[in-house]
Amino acid sequence: MGRIDKVSSQDQPVDTNKSLYIVKIGGNVIDNSENLHNFLKDFTALDGFKILVHGGGKVATQLSETLGIEPKLVDGRRITDIETLRVVTMVYGGLINKNIVAQLQRFGTNAIGLTGADGDFIRAKKRPVKTIDYGFVGDLDEDSINPQNLKNLIGAGFTPVFCALTHDGEGQLLNTNADTIASALAVTLSDLYKTTLIYCFEKKGVLKDINDEESLIQDIDPQRYEELKAQQIIHSGMLPKLDNAFTAIACGVTSVIIGNSNDLGKLKDNKPFGTLLSNNK
Amino acid sequence: MGRIDKVSSQDQPVDTNKSLYIVKIGGNVIDNSENLHNFLKDFTALDGFKILVHGGGKVATQLSETLGIEPKLVDGRRITDIETLRVVTMVYGGLINKNIVAQLQRFGTNAIGLTGADGDFIRAKKRPVKTIDYGFVGDLDEDSINPQNLKNLIGAGFTPVFCALTHDGEGQLLNTNADTIASALAVTLSDLYKTTLIYCFEKKGVLKDINDEESLIQDIDPQRYEELKAQQIIHSGMLPKLDNAFTAIACGVTSVIIGNSNDLGKLKDNKPFGTLLSNNK
Repeated sequence: MGRIDKVSSQDQPVDTNKSLYIVKIGGNVIDNSENLHNFLKDFTALDGFKILVHGGGKVATQLSETLGIEPKLVDGRRITDIETLRVVTMVYGGLINKNIVAQLQRFGTNAIGLTGADGDFIRAKKRPVKTIDYGFVGDLDEDSINPQNLKNLIGAGFTPVFCALTHDGEGQLLNTNADTIASALAVTLSDLYKTTLIYCFEKKGVLKDINDEESLIQDIDPQRYEELKAQQIIHSGMLPKLDNAFTAIACGVTSVIIGNSNDLGKLKDNKPFGTLLSNNK
Repeated sequence: MGRIDKVSSQDQPVDTNKSLYIVKIGGNVIDNSENLHNFLKDFTALDGFKILVHGGGKVATQLSETLGIEPKLVDGRRITDIETLRVVTMVYGGLINKNIVAQLQRFGTNAIGLTGADGDFIRAKKRPVKTIDYGFVGDLDEDSINPQNLKNLIGAGFTPVFCALTHDGEGQLLNTNADTIASALAVTLSDLYKTTLIYCFEKKGVLKDINDEESLIQDIDPQRYEELKAQQIIHSGMLPKLDNAFTAIACGVTSVIIGNSNDLGKLKDNKPFGTLLSNNK
């Protein structure tokens, strides 16, 4: 995919036998210091190479409110104007990211906190204005991730911690969805590592009955996914998440896990954790 | 010095023949976008390994004011309470740092924006409370800089950009003077590289007459420094800066340059830039 062709010409060997976990957490973890603390301990305990991707949380909204910046929404989509970009650069790139890094260091993970501008790791394109001007929002394509620079960083012993910011290569930071960043990293890096993508959210995983946490579906392959959709067991809110997951798997990601951050520790103990999406179940 | 003994046992060869420039800029550069732009271009043009260290600027003060956080000063020294630490983490670690990184990437420097928590690069000790409680301020000692991790990062092709934040290794970020960070980096890394420390400030360098920018003293060695002090040509404000510089030189730093950021480009062209402090003039 994309910039991968640059990698094959490099001297360093490809580590496709080595495991890489890419774990994405959202506001529900970040906003709860006890959950975050436990999650970061469990993240540290995971064997293999690791990347953490984190979203925002309430702090950016609160800071915007305090500064009198009105949230701008068009058709339910958030607009990133220049003032909002400043706030998310401060909160995502500074406050949240660097506090996560300091905590991870405490637990023994040699974390390094990043935006996509750092190391030119993630280069995005400012979303073109069609009917809506989203402002300083960056979209990713198959060339967005720089695998060689990431491999160099990971190979040097560091654990990247990405916030939801990228850059355009022309000096402009851009706001980019954290789920999309996690998925793009997983797809590109699956050519270099045996890559597992983990989406943490507030549920135990994909549920047969959204109101029953005990109705967890432990694994889904593409065929079962089609059946679940036909039976309308998978509800509309989960469809984009699962579609993206199976696209990532089709592009080389070994498996995708969707689960609750509080359960991440089960992975280390080889216990079932969340819903496992893969090709070869 | 300090953690250096860990380095000598490593496999990687020591690059004392390779040049490392450590350049520190302060608020007078950061607050002026044209000066910053030109400086970052000149920084990019410098040959050899490089580290940039930046201080704060007006933005942190302005944000504190907007948020209604009263600046706390005791005996003219700024106190970093928890609210102020949040602000500087956002502004230094996020807004300023990541925008500098995005600009450097635009000019072709493979920059990576850091606090001392990232990569465990700079570990400080919270300043003990004696007569004054400085709050979340971190002091450095000879073990603070992690040379091996920095060598791994620089060796992997990245240019570190440090803001004035460190950590205590226990999960706590700390506010640390940027001049001190630059000097500590230079001293520790001088065992690995031929290290030049450059302090950019608002004057052309050390002046014979503080009111005459043309009265630049081009070079000073320790003997001349004693003479200049005896003649009271070097005024009180410059004494701590120069004392620190000659201490760094005594600890292995090849030379220290004190000059104006607008003149950094002269270094690339082998023209005299600022005041050169060294042992062997």
